[in-house]
Amino acid sequence: MTGAAAPRRGRGRPPAAERADGPGARERILEAARDEFAERGYDRTSVRGIAKAAGVDAALVHHYFGTKDEVFAAAVEVSFEPALVVPAVVGPGPAGVGERLARYFFDVWEDPAARAPLLAVIRSALTHEAAAKVLRGYVLRRVLERVAEELDVPDPRFRAELAASHMIGIAVLRYVIRVEPLASAEPEAIVAVVAPTLQQYLTEA
Amino acid sequence: MTGAAAPRRGRGRPPAAERADGPGARERILEAARDEFAERGYDRTSVRGIAKAAGVDAALVHHYFGTKDEVFAAAVEVSFEPALVVPAVVGPGPAGVGERLARYFFDVWEDPAARAPLLAVIRSALTHEAAAKVLRGYVLRRVLERVAEELDVPDPRFRAELAASHMIGIAVLRYVIRVEPLASAEPEAIVAVVAPTLQQYLTEA
Repeated sequence: MTGAAAPRRGRGRPPAAERADGPGARERILEAARDEFAERGYDRTSVRGIAKAAGVDAALVHHYFGTKDEVFAAAVEVSFEPALVVPAVVGPGPAGVGERLARYFFDVWEDPAARAPLLAVIRSALTHEAAAKVLRGYVLRRVLERVAEELDVPDPRFRAELAASHMIGIAVLRYVIRVEPLASAEPEAIVAVVAPTLQQYLTEA
Repeated sequence: MTGAAAPRRGRGRPPAAERADGPGARERILEAARDEFAERGYDRTSVRGIAKAAGVDAALVHHYFGTKDEVFAAAVEVSFEPALVVPAVVGPGPAGVGERLARYFFDVWEDPAARAPLLAVIRSALTHEAAAKVLRGYVLRRVLERVAEELDVPDPRFRAELAASHMIGIAVLRYVIRVEPLASAEPEAIVAVVAPTLQQYLTEA
């Protein structure tokens, strides 16, 4: 006998709590959250529903992320990975930052798997103050602070927000309203016009 | 006796059909439509509800505007009066067009009475394909065609849409998500940064 308290790894189906809390549980919860928010919208998504979709207990979702708002913030961030992206886009310095930002934008949005949850975020934020508050208070604040730290312009937050506003407006017209010719334009054609604007906002005094 | 068929003007309450069809009925319907779409959203607004709010028969709404989609298009257009605005903004020629467009944008959006229905339009278009289709097919097509006619740049529609995307993104971040410092910035501070971008999109080859 190996002792009742020792986990019985590799022998049959492990107990639910063990599976749930094992490596990958956090990622499974985030993926489930992303899908739930994308499919149901902010209002009709619950921590209980996310937990069920991830095959874990709701307590584990609370343990990793806290409230529904905090799960939402984490699920949004996982869609565009600001911790990786901000250094990659802004880190190399001012030369070419506008083009890197515009290209990054299309890398994310032209990928349907990434687009669906981002659309869900925009829709949720536009229709539910709670979701707008999360986006404003967690996601945008963190990203914009990180970007602003790297910029050498007056009012860096303001400039970063104006650059972001352009990208968000393009996402709305191209991917949601789908107005032509913007909806069918090659990303490169849009980058060619927009990158110099972003470059100017993020670098010129 | 004055004859049973003659309308009894000035004597007591006129019959409903007469009041409804009188001068101002069209405007009353549009105002009611604007309020209904703003308050209830696209999905839960009906021609019947608009007619009731305007104090007219639903048949009169159909008579003036056609379907619910067409009422929606008319209610959107009345919010920013493209027939007046496009000539005022683009008509005077290329010099200063970026600044005129940016100022016009804030003239409309800084007025709470105009903002509410515009927010409702953006929300509806982001959450209901039917509303997005109306915005794409009627409103934006008409406005952008009119603007593009006046522009002397390659791909004038594309350029006009990129300018519009910037304004729409600012509206989303400033008035819906309300991210700071953009939400509290003076309109003039935003115009100062954005007008040169619009100017470039709308005039430079």
